[in-house]
Amino acid sequence: MGKVIAELVVVPLGTATPSVSTYVAEVEKKLREFSLKIKLTPMGTILEGELSEVLRAVQEVHEVPFTSGALRVGTTLRIDERRDKDFTMEGKIRAVEEKLR
Amino acid sequence: MGKVIAELVVVPLGTATPSVSTYVAEVEKKLREFSLKIKLTPMGTILEGELSEVLRAVQEVHEVPFTSGALRVGTTLRIDERRDKDFTMEGKIRAVEEKLR
Amino acid sequence: MGKVIAELVVVPLGTATPSVSTYVAEVEKKLREFSLKIKLTPMGTILEGELSEVLRAVQEVHEVPFTSGALRVGTTLRIDERRDKDFTMEGKIRAVEEKLR
Amino acid sequence: MGKVIAELVVVPLGTATPSVSTYVAEVEKKLREFSLKIKLTPMGTILEGELSEVLRAVQEVHEVPFTSGALRVGTTLRIDERRDKDFTMEGKIRAVEEKLR
Repeated sequence: MGKVIAELVVVPLGTATPSVSTYVAEVEKKLREFSLKIKLTPMGTILEGELSEVLRAVQEVHEVPFTSGALRVGTTLRIDERRDKDFTMEGKIRAVEEKLR
Repeated sequence: MGKVIAELVVVPLGTATPSVSTYVAEVEKKLREFSLKIKLTPMGTILEGELSEVLRAVQEVHEVPFTSGALRVGTTLRIDERRDKDFTMEGKIRAVEEKLR
Repeated sequence: MGKVIAELVVVPLGTATPSVSTYVAEVEKKLREFSLKIKLTPMGTILEGELSEVLRAVQEVHEVPFTSGALRVGTTLRIDERRDKDFTMEGKIRAVEEKLR
Repeated sequence: MGKVIAELVVVPLGTATPSVSTYVAEVEKKLREFSLKIKLTPMGTILEGELSEVLRAVQEVHEVPFTSGALRVGTTLRIDERRDKDFTMEGKIRAVEEKLR
């Protein structure tokens, strides 16, 4: 079992205001406590690391908006794992970009 | 912390044939070993239970297609949790259907 | 080009209350205006029909919560299409259930 | 109606090899034909533009892997739209990063 690449999105519902960046920033702070490579994108956060560590992070960050007062939280995790070769964020991007040249 | 409702999709990539129902059936069998209410839909499996149990299940079922020979697996988990009231699969459907009458 | 099976989830953000069933019911009503088979689940709505009709529906229903006062809307569409054989909601479920027996 | 920010993922199933970067590169090439700002990430492609243009692109790029020989294609689109203020990829990232300082 090696590393997985995953995308995580945590969104509070019913927060009275459409801005959720304060909640997202709290989630990002919490994510930094884990042994994961993290990369923020405009549509979520990309993680690279052991699956067990990713799932431990999901358990914790799903809790974050509740701690900040949210009554409902939606969390989405998309995991991609490949075992026939080394698999990294940079490698995935590079493989596509080489074919675009 | 109460129960969450979640949707889980596990898909093998690069399996030589576009049919993945054998893999999905293996995933369903494994899911039944957990303390979760499960409901198969045409687009995934809906789970109801403790978040920690859902994540324990994700760790295990993501492994299933690899055990069956897949070299790449994509797993998607969508978690919905609401803490201001009792929250169940049936309750969610009923709330919408009552408003449709 | 044949029929696709898709899952659609439309969620308003920043709505003052964590309940979104009123918005979901409005979305369901609008969906019934399209030439699509629809099936409500606890985590979204499953659609079956031509891709062009599904995308026409997405354009319309993404607008529905804004019409009801929402300032931010998140819409997720997951499309599954298979061209080597007839592909239906019931067929997908049946293929898995036969393997579970 | 203004611009939306969206994430698009197009994946062929049953392709004999777990590598899908050739298909992803074809999808990226096609996406460049549309009036959309596009940004490739390790887990998908982020789009910014009019919703109608995004949906027109989805119709076309979902077709791309079939043209390259795939028999089954899974396409996922996640749309985020906010109407109370100007909404861009950079603005979303900036709002979070300012709160992380």
